[in-house]
Amino acid sequence: MVAKNAFYAQSGGVTAVINATACAVIETARQHPDKIGKVLAGRNGIIGALTEDLIDTSLESAADIAALRHTPGGAFGSCRYKLKGMDQHRAQYERLIEVFKAHDIGYFFYNGGNDSMDTAWKVSQIGEQLGYPVVCVGIPKTVDNDLPITDNCPGFGSVAKYVATSIREAAFDVASMAKTSTKIFVMEVMGRHAGWITAACGLAAEKEGDGPHLLLFPEVPFDEAAFLARVKQCVEKYDHCVIGVSEGLLNKEGQLMAEAGGKDAFGHSQLGGVGQVIAQLVKERLGYKYHWALADYLQRSARHIASATDVEQAYAVGKAAVELALAGRNAVMPAILRTSDTHYRWEIGTANLKDVANVEKMMPKAFITADGFGITDACRRYLSPLIEGELPPPYRNGLPDYVRLSNQGVPRRLPEYAV
Amino acid sequence: MVAKNAFYAQSGGVTAVINATACAVIETARQHPDKIGKVLAGRNGIIGALTEDLIDTSLESAADIAALRHTPGGAFGSCRYKLKGMDQHRAQYERLIEVFKAHDIGYFFYNGGNDSMDTAWKVSQIGEQLGYPVVCVGIPKTVDNDLPITDNCPGFGSVAKYVATSIREAAFDVASMAKTSTKIFVMEVMGRHAGWITAACGLAAEKEGDGPHLLLFPEVPFDEAAFLARVKQCVEKYDHCVIGVSEGLLNKEGQLMAEAGGKDAFGHSQLGGVGQVIAQLVKERLGYKYHWALADYLQRSARHIASATDVEQAYAVGKAAVELALAGRNAVMPAILRTSDTHYRWEIGTANLKDVANVEKMMPKAFITADGFGITDACRRYLSPLIEGELPPPYRNGLPDYVRLSNQGVPRRLPEYAV
Repeated sequence: MVAKNAFYAQSGGVTAVINATACAVIETARQHPDKIGKVLAGRNGIIGALTEDLIDTSLESAADIAALRHTPGGAFGSCRYKLKGMDQHRAQYERLIEVFKAHDIGYFFYNGGNDSMDTAWKVSQIGEQLGYPVVCVGIPKTVDNDLPITDNCPGFGSVAKYVATSIREAAFDVASMAKTSTKIFVMEVMGRHAGWITAACGLAAEKEGDGPHLLLFPEVPFDEAAFLARVKQCVEKYDHCVIGVSEGLLNKEGQLMAEAGGKDAFGHSQLGGVGQVIAQLVKERLGYKYHWALADYLQRSARHIASATDVEQAYAVGKAAVELALAGRNAVMPAILRTSDTHYRWEIGTANLKDVANVEKMMPKAFITADGFGITDACRRYLSPLIEGELPPPYRNGLPDYVRLSNQGVPRRLPEYAV
Repeated sequence: MVAKNAFYAQSGGVTAVINATACAVIETARQHPDKIGKVLAGRNGIIGALTEDLIDTSLESAADIAALRHTPGGAFGSCRYKLKGMDQHRAQYERLIEVFKAHDIGYFFYNGGNDSMDTAWKVSQIGEQLGYPVVCVGIPKTVDNDLPITDNCPGFGSVAKYVATSIREAAFDVASMAKTSTKIFVMEVMGRHAGWITAACGLAAEKEGDGPHLLLFPEVPFDEAAFLARVKQCVEKYDHCVIGVSEGLLNKEGQLMAEAGGKDAFGHSQLGGVGQVIAQLVKERLGYKYHWALADYLQRSARHIASATDVEQAYAVGKAAVELALAGRNAVMPAILRTSDTHYRWEIGTANLKDVANVEKMMPKAFITADGFGITDACRRYLSPLIEGELPPPYRNGLPDYVRLSNQGVPRRLPEYAV
């Protein structure tokens, strides 16, 4: 068997550990030079494949590839670009196969979330039809933690650790200030549809009185009266109240609270500011001074406080993906299987791409307390192991020492193609 | 000499390392039982002294006191409360002395910023007049880094490390997303009057093209045209632009940009949202998609990414304060003196409280580049050593293991007093 090249691309929002997966794909591929030639990466994800803008990762040193394991962001660029259905855009899929053929690519690794698993599934089916079979393996990645079958998604554990750490720290701060100054602290976190990240904030509270005291999930329509009553009660008891809120919080009419909150100076709906909407509501109705934080990209790029479990799993799925490809397993995705909960153990299994594509795993109802403002013990048992362990990056000049690859392009062999 | 008790209080906005100072004060005092009895802490700062709400720190274990070294926030509570001038409120100062007398307090340690050094100075003068001399020592603390004489202020180095780390990480993220999604990332940081924290963001950029690409200082009135031109240029060159902005950014009319930005849903001025104002301006004028982050309390409570230098200095000033008090040095403050810049070395010297009280140290003009959007090499030389070294807290269940003291009160001996 002549060694074929492999194509690897990163898709959608990046994470603190997606490069650990890239590291695993490249390092594992390099261990099999008899079967895999070069790993070619798509510059800016699948767009790089469509436009034949390929990066030759074989030109990067082993040390730089190893450094990907501790570098956040997407080393080759990612993209938000969903291939349309086969019927509408068959030409796009044909183009992909054409590029793969031109660069002798026999393996396709697509590292992303739901949409990407759908794309990978489609590509896995069309190669054969077009007479150029490619082994397609999806690799899970999403801070939203919403892929099915896999117990959790690489990227989520590190966000979870970041938000829980941050809200614990801020809670210590506001508790100190409450007597004469700030009594309310609101932290807004990601997760538009599923409350996994909001739930993770709850891990910071272990004892009576610990913040966060209230969580606002996208799954629970905002009940203003109940919320304000709980805030008041909390301040009367602890002199302060710490709140974690999802960017996707909805009002009872099913509208995003962030949009319902008002218009900005330019007359736009104020998105990404539900934290402020909630904080101001408390100020308006109860008179308490507030501070609020919007972690935004900080939460999903915070490699400095990554979960060691997450980093290991991100590496493991990348390694497993290459091993699956070498075994000729088309149309699959490595999945994390939890084999023990009390003493957390996990292993890598396999999911079929067609079972993963476009399915969103929501948070179980049993993970949210009956009042809608907290997490249950079952939720805690699920989340806790995912934030275990620290694996800090190396530091240089007092800052994390992250790598930038040279990302040298592969000469084009085909006519231009516009996306 | 009969051992007198010591009073210690935390004042103003807390930091990631103010408890390291508290730890040093208590540990050092405990080493001198012949001269210092108990360390009594003010619950919620100076308010605890005025209301005779004192905490008996002798009831805390050595292990819990040691754990303060890695715990953010203010362990005894802080306050935003400025004692008025002696003429207006002589009664308040007399009350302080009365409380000190009732609890046999011979040493007064006040851990705070400019206002607090003013209070400490006044107290240092009145004891003698009232026939109950107390040795008063101020201890520097402020994330704003604006105390004079001392080379830098404990608390600042850790914020600096946090903001530089965070903006570096976010810059890696947005660089990955720029092709099809977010091109602009704005991070808003603290520092209403002085741009020290904004400047620290600049440490994240070491090479051509590294973010942050632009900084907006409170010292430089916002020049919209120049700013937008630079953003455009940056995006054309690097496909993205990362911006650090001070909450205190002013427009050319000298108004806070955050206030000029619009009213919220309740008709309030939108404070703490200059990051969003700037981001939306770019979107409006240049059409680039943006994300923005507001670190708020996260930045000053992030003990998990504290600077080791900062922790050491926070401890050193606490220790020195007790040593100064034992030597009978009234009306002074330990100051950090930089003795070498190239190979950073520092030692603890002494400043007179009257020279520190109410003086704000602004950032030198020579620290901001001529175009107003960046930091100079001189600034980098000043800032770099302050973020050096990591001293992570212990972790338990995947999260920093911070201590909560029992904070048991001392029985009151005086009539009530309202503040």
